[in-house]
Amino acid sequence: MIIYDRPVRFEDVDAAGIVFFARFFGYTHEAMEALFASVPNGYSGLVVERKLGFPAVHVEADFRSPLRYGDTARISVDVLRVGNKSATLRFTLRKASDDTHCATITHTCAVCDLEKLRAIPMPTDIRAVLDANLLPS
Amino acid sequence: MIIYDRPVRFEDVDAAGIVFFARFFGYTHEAMEALFASVPNGYSGLVVERKLGFPAVHVEADFRSPLRYGDTARISVDVLRVGNKSATLRFTLRKASDDTHCATITHTCAVCDLEKLRAIPMPTDIRAVLDANLLPS
Amino acid sequence: MIIYDRPVRFEDVDAAGIVFFARFFGYTHEAMEALFASVPNGYSGLVVERKLGFPAVHVEADFRSPLRYGDTARISVDVLRVGNKSATLRFTLRKASDDTHCATITHTCAVCDLEKLRAIPMPTDIRAVLDANLLPS
Amino acid sequence: MIIYDRPVRFEDVDAAGIVFFARFFGYTHEAMEALFASVPNGYSGLVVERKLGFPAVHVEADFRSPLRYGDTARISVDVLRVGNKSATLRFTLRKASDDTHCATITHTCAVCDLEKLRAIPMPTDIRAVLDANLLPS
Repeated sequence: MIIYDRPVRFEDVDAAGIVFFARFFGYTHEAMEALFASVPNGYSGLVVERKLGFPAVHVEADFRSPLRYGDTARISVDVLRVGNKSATLRFTLRKASDDTHCATITHTCAVCDLEKLRAIPMPTDIRAVLDANLLPS
Repeated sequence: MIIYDRPVRFEDVDAAGIVFFARFFGYTHEAMEALFASVPNGYSGLVVERKLGFPAVHVEADFRSPLRYGDTARISVDVLRVGNKSATLRFTLRKASDDTHCATITHTCAVCDLEKLRAIPMPTDIRAVLDANLLPS
Repeated sequence: MIIYDRPVRFEDVDAAGIVFFARFFGYTHEAMEALFASVPNGYSGLVVERKLGFPAVHVEADFRSPLRYGDTARISVDVLRVGNKSATLRFTLRKASDDTHCATITHTCAVCDLEKLRAIPMPTDIRAVLDANLLPS
Repeated sequence: MIIYDRPVRFEDVDAAGIVFFARFFGYTHEAMEALFASVPNGYSGLVVERKLGFPAVHVEADFRSPLRYGDTARISVDVLRVGNKSATLRFTLRKASDDTHCATITHTCAVCDLEKLRAIPMPTDIRAVLDANLLPS
């Protein structure tokens, strides 16, 4: 498990005054990038140098409590499943100041060749990161 | 059912060159706003004048095919369920040029008093819009 | 001169409840894309097929009155200058409902080969669009 | 002067593969928030608790070199002028890895009562932050 802290930015809210729900998925993508910090040059190295990515093919989200400007989302990232070409990540978002549970989001992602946009077998270093964060079943 | 066409904008893509997955939820929110065009002053009238909103409490998404700059997302909106305080909407996103199925996204939304952020019984005019677009079961 | 109407979206505001100032530049970029609607496949055709773009090298903006969710920005686009490799566009943003002047923004843009990111002489069809919208001096 | 480092995010680029020009203004707004870190509860404290803000009334930008995913924008913030109700901030953006000068952006901002959206005389603690970062003339 890793923890990624993401302060809500001035521009992240919507006309209801709370973080726009779609931005939560930007936050969880950043947390996923943080998970891959240890591969060479991080997630951007994967994308830019190796032309690999980990796009979401299935997403589920439960929203329980809003976040507002001034809050920080504390995001814990767990790996629920590691397959041959895909994996499932779970992101639990809490308000850092008081630990309120704000949302739980899962991404099922497929390792893809970004030039062909086709799923490929998982490279060893990606699998190692995922295995190291895999929840015991 | 309504149809909402959303051209992909220059800034909607990510470093992989395809529409960033989180933006699909902005697209579906716009399609939901289009669904409520017939209430007084539309969805913005609900939010700004009546301090009501319809935030998502649960979201599911299946991503099947990417969209790129130059494409238009053709989004059909169906209502799957209308409850006392909530409803479930289904958004089917196709590429307008060739009808490729790109994604299916569902939002379960609760009608909320935006000042208290508490679910309230559904007002009559909101229910009427939802009932008019309810899929036969 | 062309006119481009852009409704403020639910997610365009900031924690002060008004359209985030940086989003005005997204609006003006959309208005610029609308200006080029008549070239083959529009601005996206330029970018995707011809690998040409028109990035801003200098921007100035005066902000006079805010926009809020529910408003529509009515943007008029004029061309102030057409050079050999660059041009200056002026965007005047008014609130559609009451014609309040909200902002004036200018972009000086250079025609670029997007693969080399180098300015190139202006293609004939781009120059024709700019000349047709050039303000008399 | 303060320095604010902002990694380019996966979603910050446009269809030309470089950071979308409008996002630079989001980056400079974040740098401005960082400048005010020392007021009580930071810039979000100003906005949320004191209903004060510092919206831009005039912006100028020179774009010289692009940023891409994987780069970090190193932003230095200087104060050029402190007036009674407004101030001018200058943001110099360099690529952190090799110090390439990417952009220079200035914001002239007015201290505003966010409820009335009216300029007000500058509070003492805001002036103190600005004075402490004022460039010698």
